[in-house]
Amino acid sequence: MQRFKVLAAVSMVAVTTSSFAYANDELVKMQENPKNWVMQLGDYSSTRYSKLDEINKSNVGNLQVAWTFSTGVLRGHEGGPLVIGDIMYVHTPFPNKVFALDLNDNGRIIWKYEPKQDPDVIPVMCCDTVNRGVAYGNGMIFLHQADTTLVALDAKTGEVKWKVQNGDASKGETGTSAPMVAGDKVLVGISGGEFGIQGHMTAYNIADGSMAWRAYTSGPDDKIMLDPEKTTYLGKPVGKDSSLKTWEGDQWKLGGGATWGWLSYDPELNLVYYGSGNPGTWNPTQRPGDNRWSMTIFARDLDTGMAKWVYQMTPHDEWDYDGVNEMMLVDMDVDGKTHKALVHPDRNGFAYTLDRETGELLVAKKYDPAVNWATEVVMDPSSDQYGRPQVVSDYSTDQNGPDVNTQGVCPAALGTKDQQPSSYSPKTGLFYIPTNHVCMDYEPFQVSYTAGQPYVGATLSMFPAPNSHGGLGNFIAWDASKGEIKWSIPEPFSVWSGALATAGDVVFYGTLEGYLKAVDAETGKELYRFKTPSGIIGNVTSYEHDGKQYIAVYSGIGGWAGIGLAAGLTEGTEGLGAVGAYRSLSSYTNLGGQLTVFALPD
Amino acid sequence: MQRFKVLAAVSMVAVTTSSFAYANDELVKMQENPKNWVMQLGDYSSTRYSKLDEINKSNVGNLQVAWTFSTGVLRGHEGGPLVIGDIMYVHTPFPNKVFALDLNDNGRIIWKYEPKQDPDVIPVMCCDTVNRGVAYGNGMIFLHQADTTLVALDAKTGEVKWKVQNGDASKGETGTSAPMVAGDKVLVGISGGEFGIQGHMTAYNIADGSMAWRAYTSGPDDKIMLDPEKTTYLGKPVGKDSSLKTWEGDQWKLGGGATWGWLSYDPELNLVYYGSGNPGTWNPTQRPGDNRWSMTIFARDLDTGMAKWVYQMTPHDEWDYDGVNEMMLVDMDVDGKTHKALVHPDRNGFAYTLDRETGELLVAKKYDPAVNWATEVVMDPSSDQYGRPQVVSDYSTDQNGPDVNTQGVCPAALGTKDQQPSSYSPKTGLFYIPTNHVCMDYEPFQVSYTAGQPYVGATLSMFPAPNSHGGLGNFIAWDASKGEIKWSIPEPFSVWSGALATAGDVVFYGTLEGYLKAVDAETGKELYRFKTPSGIIGNVTSYEHDGKQYIAVYSGIGGWAGIGLAAGLTEGTEGLGAVGAYRSLSSYTNLGGQLTVFALPD
Ligand SMILES: O=C(O)c1cc(C(=O)O)c2c(n1)C(=O)C(=O)c1cc(C(=O)O)[nH]c1-2
Ligand SMILES: O=C(O)c1cc(C(=O)O)c2c(n1)C(=O)C(=O)c1cc(C(=O)O)[nH]c1-2
Repeated sequence: MQRFKVLAAVSMVAVTTSSFAYANDELVKMQENPKNWVMQLGDYSSTRYSKLDEINKSNVGNLQVAWTFSTGVLRGHEGGPLVIGDIMYVHTPFPNKVFALDLNDNGRIIWKYEPKQDPDVIPVMCCDTVNRGVAYGNGMIFLHQADTTLVALDAKTGEVKWKVQNGDASKGETGTSAPMVAGDKVLVGISGGEFGIQGHMTAYNIADGSMAWRAYTSGPDDKIMLDPEKTTYLGKPVGKDSSLKTWEGDQWKLGGGATWGWLSYDPELNLVYYGSGNPGTWNPTQRPGDNRWSMTIFARDLDTGMAKWVYQMTPHDEWDYDGVNEMMLVDMDVDGKTHKALVHPDRNGFAYTLDRETGELLVAKKYDPAVNWATEVVMDPSSDQYGRPQVVSDYSTDQNGPDVNTQGVCPAALGTKDQQPSSYSPKTGLFYIPTNHVCMDYEPFQVSYTAGQPYVGATLSMFPAPNSHGGLGNFIAWDASKGEIKWSIPEPFSVWSGALATAGDVVFYGTLEGYLKAVDAETGKELYRFKTPSGIIGNVTSYEHDGKQYIAVYSGIGGWAGIGLAAGLTEGTEGLGAVGAYRSLSSYTNLGGQLTVFALPD
Repeated sequence: MQRFKVLAAVSMVAVTTSSFAYANDELVKMQENPKNWVMQLGDYSSTRYSKLDEINKSNVGNLQVAWTFSTGVLRGHEGGPLVIGDIMYVHTPFPNKVFALDLNDNGRIIWKYEPKQDPDVIPVMCCDTVNRGVAYGNGMIFLHQADTTLVALDAKTGEVKWKVQNGDASKGETGTSAPMVAGDKVLVGISGGEFGIQGHMTAYNIADGSMAWRAYTSGPDDKIMLDPEKTTYLGKPVGKDSSLKTWEGDQWKLGGGATWGWLSYDPELNLVYYGSGNPGTWNPTQRPGDNRWSMTIFARDLDTGMAKWVYQMTPHDEWDYDGVNEMMLVDMDVDGKTHKALVHPDRNGFAYTLDRETGELLVAKKYDPAVNWATEVVMDPSSDQYGRPQVVSDYSTDQNGPDVNTQGVCPAALGTKDQQPSSYSPKTGLFYIPTNHVCMDYEPFQVSYTAGQPYVGATLSMFPAPNSHGGLGNFIAWDASKGEIKWSIPEPFSVWSGALATAGDVVFYGTLEGYLKAVDAETGKELYRFKTPSGIIGNVTSYEHDGKQYIAVYSGIGGWAGIGLAAGLTEGTEGLGAVGAYRSLSSYTNLGGQLTVFALPD
């Protein structure tokens, strides 16, 4: 019976293959079915929540490994598998292989796609050869390759339906982010903030890969697709040339603002949400101004691409606090009023709650007490500082100037949280956030631009937050309406893995040493741990097959935190400053590339 | 209490570090303690039997994965971990890393050794970049690197105690075999039979790595260390120039006879046992004669290196049936008489039982009914064919001659069994043999020698044994005193993993698709299977820690059978003819390199 239903779901997919207009409806329906895991962040709201509850807080301690799969590729494995009916889709870092595994036949490989990519792209990937996963829609699997090729594969056969080139790797434009399918479009960002690229978000028509719209991060209003009158910033029209005015001369053309993070979508508002990354270079005195719209949350109309509202979290970034982290769309009460909210734990150490319809700022609070670069975000609408963080001069790498080592800045460049996505449980109303607890010394220096060469201009070194537990991370439960930490689990290393909350009142996450951990959603009490083959920077997912709930996660150390191991770097300041802090990881784990799937005993 | 004993065992090791004369006694004692796994084949008798019985045939179905470890290296993982007290030693294929893992601390890496080796050795390794494991003795871990360096590492710190060069990779001499420590010596063979090398077995003094003796496979009597009068062949002295007489001119100098297989040792007789590989080239008409002592079992005195007896299984090889498989030393009754026996399931498809003291031939029977190249081995001592296989002309690649495709020879060149070691249970008296069920077409051609270049001279293609179950392997139980198959489990692929029998009446083995399987030692009934990350060509081992029994095995597809996947080859005749037969493996598994450790639930 169970089996029959799953098969039925699959054939439904097949039937809709040619009716592109319904991609959106199909995915909305599919994300409702917790047997599937249809998009990287679980649903359009990016909550990474599973309604399955067979595995719960009283039995999760009995979890067992059900089966495993080696991807045949080493280095950082970000993202996670998708499950659509009886098929699991597994992807890898460069060279970005994709496998379709038959869940009815012990994970037998139905098809595989192995793109031929020029390995020259590897040295222009800032933070390991990662890929945050494939997307599903209209009977197709969408892969965003390192070389920025976006490929549409037939989900049943692996056949290439179309391909499009989203950027130019020879200029340092690369692909690491997961695409998102919404409506009749597939949206994809671009990486290269450390190479003087110009960030953009692009929507391709799912039917044939033709471009529907492309919106840049910085530049003239038409290029960034915002309307001086209608697009708002904290409730007010942004006005003409809102970006150009905040850059000196043509600097915006090398201005970064890459869009390498996560996308969310509200089907009712028909708005897509994502953030932009750091302005280039990392030497802030070289690029005076607010550098808009780097470090910004964008709410854009899916059909037109036009921005409805924007909010810049870190004007004139001096620390590399990319604004690309996930946007969780949850309706909630803040100060007694119900909002369609957007919750965004930013890299700069503040977790923001905004009204996702209007862009109104509701909450902005530190989610790691170590954060010291700013005292607060001004919440008074009448202040000229409204919505801006109040920078502490001691930690201002701009005020201290180039060739001065600004010491003890918290968080470090990789933020209180980086790409690792959070989870939200509607049962507890809490957000579960994998965090970094890392500070840094930061010394900017003058740098000049050469196409395809790093455009960084700062020497960093990172270390655990001082006067704390000595570790590099915490896993926290966050109350986003109050802006309060509910509980915090200290971790020896940053938690670089995406969290999963379930209806079983359990929250899962992985650690850089390689543990999959399960904790009580209410209290954070550890209920289970298992040492997987390699460090975990993948995101935990759950699905049901043949009436049984499974938990799946990739192992494979890497990403920025694991770059020392992944790329064989040993100097403390190598890997953009991350190598030193995470050096001792090599006592716990090696490179890997495996999927581990867990279940309760029969 | 349990814990205390283990610690005591470890300090005993430390105490004996400087008393080299007792290596032998120490290992004899250590192999008695089933908590350890002190040598690759379990004990000096190469029985791969564990006296542990916590995991037994009624509870093995509940086995769970306890922990896992990625080696950070891909390609074929042969051999297995050693366990000495609280430390597990894990090794990898090229570049031959060694890890010491702390079993008291979740497998934390105590030390690692990462040799720097010239990757030029890879193309001169015939059958993947495999390594069959490290050896322990006198507080040291011995690693035989691909480039033939033999390294002695301090077992506690990983510090290099000494190193010695055993061969010359530029001539095609490589290292894949596990060393064996016996007495005050460490013995090591050499690979390169496909490169016109001259095989030899060498004993190094454990104290400083100086050479104690080296015995060649072919050549003058003094070089091959045999005494024309005292060394016997089937009970008779071999006579003068027993090797030279069987080669034309100087051909023995390129004669192969590599010693890349397993070693055994009988401490009472003070004899070491091993086999030699194929004569070069694979074109037999090019090297007339019996090509002694290729394809031969040697029994040598440990102290002097002198051969006590020899037995050539495949005189004048025409099929690449290397004689290097394991020699299991078991006392047993044959025809009503008790013998100190040696059981050797040879690659040529006959399993031999000999008296290991005298070299007398007791049993020689086909252990796969598909074997067709010879009708029988003559057992009548009065026959001039005594001890010789009776070759079937149809399948004689020599009689058919060069440039003729001899078709349907069974077994294929990789034999009825290759490097995958068997296991013996004293409880059932049966030998558990992982086998190949593969046949071939073989077309020899004229070839000339160039140092460091393949010296092969035959085109092969392999396929499942016809008129059988369609698979490429069987896992069998063998009665070595009668020469009979007790039961046989058909497998879709060759069983390239080493077996383990335990006192729990369970036999374990791995499959190329990646399953660890447990079967009933009496009946062969499957009791458990688990899909590990990658194909298994490693050997299953067992140990006890903190009062609990564990089963451990490497995954990592490769070796000759997996060479297509491991080296990315796709032509059917590539990989010395193995690629075609095993092509569909790519639907089941990918490259990997993981240790999976199993235990019963708490
Ligand atoms: O500005 C960019 O283009 C860009 C790209 C990426 C990326 O594509 O992985 C990262 C970053 N920046 C970055 O700042 C960062 O902290 C980071 C971490 C990681 C990772 O996967 O661990 N990628 C990236
Ligand atoms: O003659 C040689 O020197 C030699 C070496 C090796 C090796 O070192 O692995 C193999 C063989 N021959 C060989 O014939 C063979 O079947 C084989 C299989 C394997 C393997 O690891 O799977 N190695 C070897």
